[in-house]
Amino acid sequence: MLPDRDFFNRLADAAKAETLPRFRTGTSVANKEAGGFDPVTEGDRGAEAAIRAMIETHFPDHGILGEEFGNVGLDRDHVWVIDPIDGTRAFISGLPVWGTLIGLYHKGEAIMGLMDQPFTGERFFADGRQSHFSGPGGDKVISTRPCKDLSEAILFTTSPHLYKGDIKTRFEAVQDKVQLARYGCDCYAFALLASGHIDLVVECGLKPYDVGGLIPLIEQAGGIITDWNGGPAEMGGEIIAAGSAEVHAQALAILKT
Amino acid sequence: MLPDRDFFNRLADAAKAETLPRFRTGTSVANKEAGGFDPVTEGDRGAEAAIRAMIETHFPDHGILGEEFGNVGLDRDHVWVIDPIDGTRAFISGLPVWGTLIGLYHKGEAIMGLMDQPFTGERFFADGRQSHFSGPGGDKVISTRPCKDLSEAILFTTSPHLYKGDIKTRFEAVQDKVQLARYGCDCYAFALLASGHIDLVVECGLKPYDVGGLIPLIEQAGGIITDWNGGPAEMGGEIIAAGSAEVHAQALAILKT
Repeated sequence: MLPDRDFFNRLADAAKAETLPRFRTGTSVANKEAGGFDPVTEGDRGAEAAIRAMIETHFPDHGILGEEFGNVGLDRDHVWVIDPIDGTRAFISGLPVWGTLIGLYHKGEAIMGLMDQPFTGERFFADGRQSHFSGPGGDKVISTRPCKDLSEAILFTTSPHLYKGDIKTRFEAVQDKVQLARYGCDCYAFALLASGHIDLVVECGLKPYDVGGLIPLIEQAGGIITDWNGGPAEMGGEIIAAGSAEVHAQALAILKT
Repeated sequence: MLPDRDFFNRLADAAKAETLPRFRTGTSVANKEAGGFDPVTEGDRGAEAAIRAMIETHFPDHGILGEEFGNVGLDRDHVWVIDPIDGTRAFISGLPVWGTLIGLYHKGEAIMGLMDQPFTGERFFADGRQSHFSGPGGDKVISTRPCKDLSEAILFTTSPHLYKGDIKTRFEAVQDKVQLARYGCDCYAFALLASGHIDLVVECGLKPYDVGGLIPLIEQAGGIITDWNGGPAEMGGEIIAAGSAEVHAQALAILKT
């Protein structure tokens, strides 16, 4: 039996109870990597623990891949893919473009997913057939928009500084062709794409949990999300998401090796 | 007689009635400059018209400097400085980090100001003495945070691509010294600084209306906002805002000519 929307909502609510009270408090920042800057908050850990506990209770035969507490049963048919706070840098900056990501994979394919932004009250959910938005303005089914050409596209990426060497060259070649390029949004950019507000998201070096909850949102809204060679996005890496087949094909032609 | 908080709120509400219904609709984007990309929406024009009409009715002896409809009486003691939608690129991308900016200058000095983000429901207001936040989580007086050193600072700028030549070199020298640099927020970054969530905002090429409503928010929250030579920020240009005197001095030493 698969989880329903209500179960995903309860997972997101449990995560929100751990994250939102710690947002904009200026506390609980820790460095995961000594010398680097990879902040993770108590909210990150608390949210993932809360999500895992509910999954383990209700779906004990499912596997779990999580950012904070490692992996269990990745060889099982169903595996949950969890990033309790995607966009930790946004979180510690007080910027409400971070999100809780929860995906469900079946035999390696992302089939259901959720992204929640508790401060703005926006929740995006893909139920296996359709993608839904709930938040300010009400509830609705969302879809990507039919941008026909890269020259008319709005592109988001988290930071231009994440690209090095050859992938930097290829990313910049795409960036040079779009109408507008913006930086800084992590998962929120994928939600904007699923909602039809922007046309293209390009990222590099993603982990499975950075993208697992987002793949169904993009695909079930009519978009395309792959790696830079056009293969599955489920394991992360260099990722491209587009709202239309035309923009995906045009950008992929530049990005692929 | 000076306007009160209620009057500023009514101005912001009138602007919101023009902007929010047009946010995320995918319509009404026009190019102000042929060949360039300076989108401005019907919301921009409608909001400024609504604000100006209320000011002209209630404060007919005040001047107005606005982005969309030009200037009136800039030599008067009191001048309103209005940007109906600061962050038009965020607006057309569906990203709720744009804002309505309304400042009041007295003899060239910004003394009261407001920044409103209608989608998130956040409103920041400086009443002449203190800066206030209202929005998710309630109402409170806000203040900047006491960051002691540039190496611990979180920096925001709208886009690294806006800097050219010598100012690019100087901006990058500051960026290299901070703990975390983020892009993409326009006025929202200044509001985060006034609220004590980040430490430094550096911008170039601002117009008076890009900054007029924000100066009182920064200053009355305990921060410092100047141009890159330490002079007044009221006329825009290259601008630095910091939450503490230490971070302001350290960054200014690098930025100034």
